[in-house]
Parts: sequence; structure tokens; C-alpha cells
Amino acid sequence: MKQKLKLSKVYALLEPGPVVLVSTAYHGREDIMTMSWHTMLEFDPPMVGCVISNQNFSFDLLKASKTCVINIPTVTLAKKVVGCGNCSGAEVDKFEQFELTRMAAELVDAPLIDECFANLECRVVDSSLVSKYSFFILEVVKAWIDPTASYPKTMHHQGFGQFMIAGKRIQLKSNMR
Amino acid sequence: MKQKLKLSKVYALLEPGPVVLVSTAYHGREDIMTMSWHTMLEFDPPMVGCVISNQNFSFDLLKASKTCVINIPTVTLAKKVVGCGNCSGAEVDKFEQFELTRMAAELVDAPLIDECFANLECRVVDSSLVSKYSFFILEVVKAWIDPTASYPKTMHHQGFGQFMIAGKRIQLKSNMR
Repeated sequence: MKQKLKLSKVYALLEPGPVVLVSTAYHGREDIMTMSWHTMLEFDPPMVGCVISNQNFSFDLLKASKTCVINIPTVTLAKKVVGCGNCSGAEVDKFEQFELTRMAAELVDAPLIDECFANLECRVVDSSLVSKYSFFILEVVKAWIDPTASYPKTMHHQGFGQFMIAGKRIQLKSNMR
Repeated sequence: MKQKLKLSKVYALLEPGPVVLVSTAYHGREDIMTMSWHTMLEFDPPMVGCVISNQNFSFDLLKASKTCVINIPTVTLAKKVVGCGNCSGAEVDKFEQFELTRMAAELVDAPLIDECFANLECRVVDSSLVSKYSFFILEVVKAWIDPTASYPKTMHHQGFGQFMIAGKRIQLKSNMR
């Protein structure tokens, strides 16, 4: 069972740079897109900037619906993550094809992907750089986390199907948020 | 000795989300800033978007000089990375304080940090989101890499001095660049 995560804690999930699955929905059509080009822009409310190319079906659904969910997978989902990145939602029902489970979001239309340990419901708040860089600015309006995922082994893409998997943790004394 | 890295390969260094050290210089002043809020925006020529807050001395140097270097450290530099993030270049000479070595860049004024395994010389190409989000868009114009760094153990910040260190690599069949 997922639990609500404080919005002020969202940045710590995305700042390390994991591959994410972006789910979108609009008028009965859905898509899941594998994405690595994202950055935090603000802590609280959490703002995220990300590149979703207009060559992706997700681009159309995101532009039309103005909402999406950022789902964070671990390495146990590696094959599904790569699978979602290698076909188009215009042709394939990715939830069915990759046996992923829809969960209803609370504030947006796009579904959460249940198998991912964290799910961030997002609204598009700034499209000023979409035409130039396919860069969407999102606000995370609701966040969910699997409370049992104490050390999720996230995937970090290094190009052409090579991934670095989250290794050990270290703690240093720091005032940096 | 660093070697030139093809610009088309730069994205694979930043896409996994490592903490980087941004070096800047302007009229005899220098700074080094620890940064995690960055994303690729384009493959080739490589474009990078990043947040450098106007509360940082680096913001002033970057705005004035329009250039910087993105240096990628490994965990062997962890204390220096955190040190650079916990003081201001307005008060401290960080190269001296943290015993880091300047190397002359080829195309920009900011110095490379020799101890980092990769160095990306950058020019600011779009400042349209600087006032709203402190978001700079950079083009990487020259890239350098330590050819002996076959599996650099990059650092990935999870907040408040906690870092995930790059773990093992996996390779999956994929058409995703």
C-alpha cells in the first residue's frame, strides 16, 4: 500500500537522476514513456523540468491533458522500463503489453503505475520552452511512496541500454538541503 | 592526461544524474559550486539546462561571463564536493581551500578542475528562464575526459549530505539512444 509523501521530500527522489516512467492519459488513450532528461527546479512546491520530445505519443497526451504522473521504478522492472522506451503508445497498450498495473491518481487523470515505488502526480505549469526544447515545467501536486522501499535500487541511464544501478549510500556532514 | 571527448558522447555522462562542480571565472574572481539540478536538453550539440540560484556567488560570475565548466567528480572527492557546497566563493578561494587544481580551458575563461574525471566547457545560450527559475541553458562546446576512468563512481545527492554512489552496471538490449 502506497502512502502519501510530503511534497517537501519529493526533490530527494528525483535529484539523484533516476530513470522514470511518465504516464499520461487523455480521452481514453494512455501512454507510458521512459525518461531520463529531468531536473528539479524548486523544492516546495516541488517543480520539475523535463524533456518530452514531440516525436513521442506522450507529448500529444501531455499537451492535451496538461497532467501526467512521474513513476520511479527500480531495477526489478528493468525489462519493462526498456520495453516502454522501445515502442510507441500510439500502437501499443503499454500497461497490457508490459503487465503494469494502473492505479487511480487523486488529482490528475493519468494513472499511477503500481509497481513503481514512488508516484508523483503532476500538472504542467509552464510551457514557454516546449516549442524550442520540448521542455515542460511541472508542479508535483501529490506524491505517493511505498513505505517498505527503504533503499530502492534505481536505474540511471548511460545510453544505449546501459544502466548504472544505485549502489551504496554515504552520509557526510552538510548544510546543503 | 585528459583527452578530448566527442561532443555526441557528453549526454551519457550527465544523464545518470551525478553531482557536478561548476567552475566560473570573471575579472579575476572565481567560484566552484556543487550542483545536482541539471538535465540534458539536446544530444548534439549537447545542451544542458541547470539551476544556479541567485543566492550563489556563481550566479553573478555566470551571468557576467556567460561561460562555465561542468566538472564531474567521483566519490574520492566527496569531502571537497560537500565543502564547496557549504561555503561561498564570495568569501573563500575554493581552489585553495579544498586543494583543487586549476587547468586552463580551451574555449572559455573558467578553469577546469583537474581532479574531476570529466570537464565540460560551456557557454550560456539561453537565459530566458533565469529570472523566473534561475534556469540557465548551456551549450557544451568542448569536452575532456580521463581515459583511465573506466567506471567512475559518481555521487548522486539525496538531500542533506546523503549520497548514493554509482553501483554496478547492467546492459539491456535497447534502441534508446
